[in-house]
Amino acid sequence: MPNHTSILKDKTILIAGAGLAGSLLACYFAPLGCRVLVLERRGDPRAKGFVGGRSINLALSARGIDGLEGVGLADRVLAGAIPMRKRVMHSTSGELTDQPYSANPEDAINSVSRSGLNLTLLEAADEHPGVEIRFNQRVLECDFDAPSVTTLDEASGQQSVERADLVIGADGAFSAIRMAMQVSGRFNFSQDYLEHGYKELMIPPAADCGVDPDLHDGFALEPNALHIWPRGGSMMIALPNLDKTFTCTLFWPYQGEHAFDAVSESKKDIRAFFERHYPDAVPLMPTLADDYLANPIGSLVTVRCWPWQRGGKVALVGDAAHAIVPFYGQGMNAAFEDCRVLHRCIVEQDGDIPAALDEYQRLRKPEAEAIADMALENFVEMRDKVGRPEFLYRKKIEQTLHKAFPGKVEPQYNLVSFSTVPYTRAQQRGRDLAGVIETIAEQLPANGNSDEPGWSEAVRRLGKDLLDA
Amino acid sequence: MPNHTSILKDKTILIAGAGLAGSLLACYFAPLGCRVLVLERRGDPRAKGFVGGRSINLALSARGIDGLEGVGLADRVLAGAIPMRKRVMHSTSGELTDQPYSANPEDAINSVSRSGLNLTLLEAADEHPGVEIRFNQRVLECDFDAPSVTTLDEASGQQSVERADLVIGADGAFSAIRMAMQVSGRFNFSQDYLEHGYKELMIPPAADCGVDPDLHDGFALEPNALHIWPRGGSMMIALPNLDKTFTCTLFWPYQGEHAFDAVSESKKDIRAFFERHYPDAVPLMPTLADDYLANPIGSLVTVRCWPWQRGGKVALVGDAAHAIVPFYGQGMNAAFEDCRVLHRCIVEQDGDIPAALDEYQRLRKPEAEAIADMALENFVEMRDKVGRPEFLYRKKIEQTLHKAFPGKVEPQYNLVSFSTVPYTRAQQRGRDLAGVIETIAEQLPANGNSDEPGWSEAVRRLGKDLLDA
Repeated sequence: MPNHTSILKDKTILIAGAGLAGSLLACYFAPLGCRVLVLERRGDPRAKGFVGGRSINLALSARGIDGLEGVGLADRVLAGAIPMRKRVMHSTSGELTDQPYSANPEDAINSVSRSGLNLTLLEAADEHPGVEIRFNQRVLECDFDAPSVTTLDEASGQQSVERADLVIGADGAFSAIRMAMQVSGRFNFSQDYLEHGYKELMIPPAADCGVDPDLHDGFALEPNALHIWPRGGSMMIALPNLDKTFTCTLFWPYQGEHAFDAVSESKKDIRAFFERHYPDAVPLMPTLADDYLANPIGSLVTVRCWPWQRGGKVALVGDAAHAIVPFYGQGMNAAFEDCRVLHRCIVEQDGDIPAALDEYQRLRKPEAEAIADMALENFVEMRDKVGRPEFLYRKKIEQTLHKAFPGKVEPQYNLVSFSTVPYTRAQQRGRDLAGVIETIAEQLPANGNSDEPGWSEAVRRLGKDLLDA
Repeated sequence: MPNHTSILKDKTILIAGAGLAGSLLACYFAPLGCRVLVLERRGDPRAKGFVGGRSINLALSARGIDGLEGVGLADRVLAGAIPMRKRVMHSTSGELTDQPYSANPEDAINSVSRSGLNLTLLEAADEHPGVEIRFNQRVLECDFDAPSVTTLDEASGQQSVERADLVIGADGAFSAIRMAMQVSGRFNFSQDYLEHGYKELMIPPAADCGVDPDLHDGFALEPNALHIWPRGGSMMIALPNLDKTFTCTLFWPYQGEHAFDAVSESKKDIRAFFERHYPDAVPLMPTLADDYLANPIGSLVTVRCWPWQRGGKVALVGDAAHAIVPFYGQGMNAAFEDCRVLHRCIVEQDGDIPAALDEYQRLRKPEAEAIADMALENFVEMRDKVGRPEFLYRKKIEQTLHKAFPGKVEPQYNLVSFSTVPYTRAQQRGRDLAGVIETIAEQLPANGNSDEPGWSEAVRRLGKDLLDA
């Protein structure tokens, strides 16, 4: 291995955006010997004590951890994370159903705080002497030839032009760098909104909502789980936080029966609506009506574009290149994988930036498409299928096969969340496995037999034949 | 019928764009009693003597004529148009094949000059006392609540804010009004570029390229035709102009064998390339190499978006809402149909603008989708299929059926170009007819028999059975 500490010597890398991807990318670039200038539109979160932006809970999994590991930050971040090893489904009658994510008890997705993680990454970037982070910088223009970025300092009102050798748009789903690409000609682009929006609510610690604190280690619900209230076209989920609260998120259509426009602004109506649809959660949410009225409805968008780079000088990473819906918990994980791959391409191309960008987009674009599609599909699974007995029966077949043929059978969810095999491959293997499971379910229909010892054996036998075929 | 001359009394309609759609729309709105303010980014073409912008030849057909007729301008425009009644295909060996557009000799698409048409519409709009047109006005922002538009006068450098009761974005494929919608939340949008670009060339009058002027009434080629040099992945077309020239347009991929990047900047190479692929056209193009080098390569984009209006106050028409590729000759025609439908909705809703916009977008969106898809499909037909015997055989079956069952069988091309039945219906009927033709072609394969009298009879007999089924 060559020494990489100077392959970008005397170069300036300009990163638009000091969010999760931008901060991590700064950590990847700094050791290559370049100057890294990070321009962030928002104020310094270290001064204000918080980071704005989207606040949907983050589930850190294998790809994200791998991305952090590349700059030695995985342990620091995981120390402040809560592992979630299963889904717990809450039915309308309050019945709970567990669905483990994996046969391997080590496998978990990790609930982390977006603002805390952003702070960790920002501080890690700032520790590098070659990294400079400027806040309150609104990107006005991007010149793809120079390349350079014109920014407005929103504190001083001053405009300035920053030249660089490489400009990276890590500025999120509404990227200003991508917007400049969009009007620069021959740039394919789409943004597609769901008919659903999201709104966050809160479950306080057990003691604050009348739950015995000894029951769940101070939490109001089992903490090492992702809780889902699947309701067909709508759902609520809850993820645990270190302070023993849960952040709940409603994913509801804007219009319809079980929808944002179906609930009036009367606190009585709000509580009545939740009593009807989420009765077991209502006692756990003493500030329900106030939170519902105070918190905004966020929209959910999928962004696809191509190319991801211009002239070997300007490129996009993370949400700027491929914003996805949050239902596979992969937005941040995919972005961190982008960072690690982009770094690897630059090292492998020995600092030849145009060659590296070309390779980077070639490798990553199909992966981004695959996870975008899987994330959309997983919404249907979470809000609807997980509540159905026929789905749970298929999950049981899947887990039985997974245990019986551990190398051969790996569910799509596990490949996406607990491995770093390419998303495209996870998608393909998922489709293949779904075919096998469907055939077994047809030949071995559910009839209360799945607790008999003979059932598992029959699944294994059918599975072996189908997998060998 | 109520009197409509005052249904928009005391209202201000602001139209962004004084191109084809914007100018025509001003003519539609002015008689409703409102003030119409048209803001155009370019300079006044009456001062400069020309209109800039895209210059692909325009083929005015039934929908466009219908749109002009609604404001009494059809005859004026058609007086300066050249009817084209057939396609003439030019093979690589210089052989010509005619393909009439219709069994009805009255049916024609009409070659018109974009700049001349724009001037006519602009002057017609300006004749209305209630219409004011301002040039050199760049739209900087659009406030959807007011609604209002902030513009920069590029001549004086002055910014101003214009309030209105309705803002219409008629500002083309790269619409600034649509761009404002795009960042306003929950606006679905896509722009997709073809791998092909276009470049314009010129065939002078017969006398200037050594063709006998008596042969084609002073033209170098038959004037009442759209000429096509289909070459598989690439093509050239030529449309006649009033001054007895033809405007040729290359539609080539950017990269490949028969592509823009396959031709060097040497005049000798350019001529050699055309000698190889378009030998019969080379003698007709004395300025070929100079034109090739001087003229830019334009890109070809399909734009789709939704919704087309915001809050009942701001709406899109024409290319701003649905830019399409030019291969069905329907971009302008669809835009003019938008104008007529929008006017009708406002009249039918008795001046209730929000209700009219809602109805307008509900009616037009599926039509725009249909013609966008058919335009993409027609590119394959023009550049590739029209050169193949099996296609020409199917066209012959189609025309035989069309003649035999005139009310029942109307080819898709005819419904799109020579009628105003909805695009969606033309698309569906086209698909149905294609199925019938395919069945006949299978049962009656081409074997040089299509000139025998018995062949037509067999087609009619099979057609009758299939159509009655």
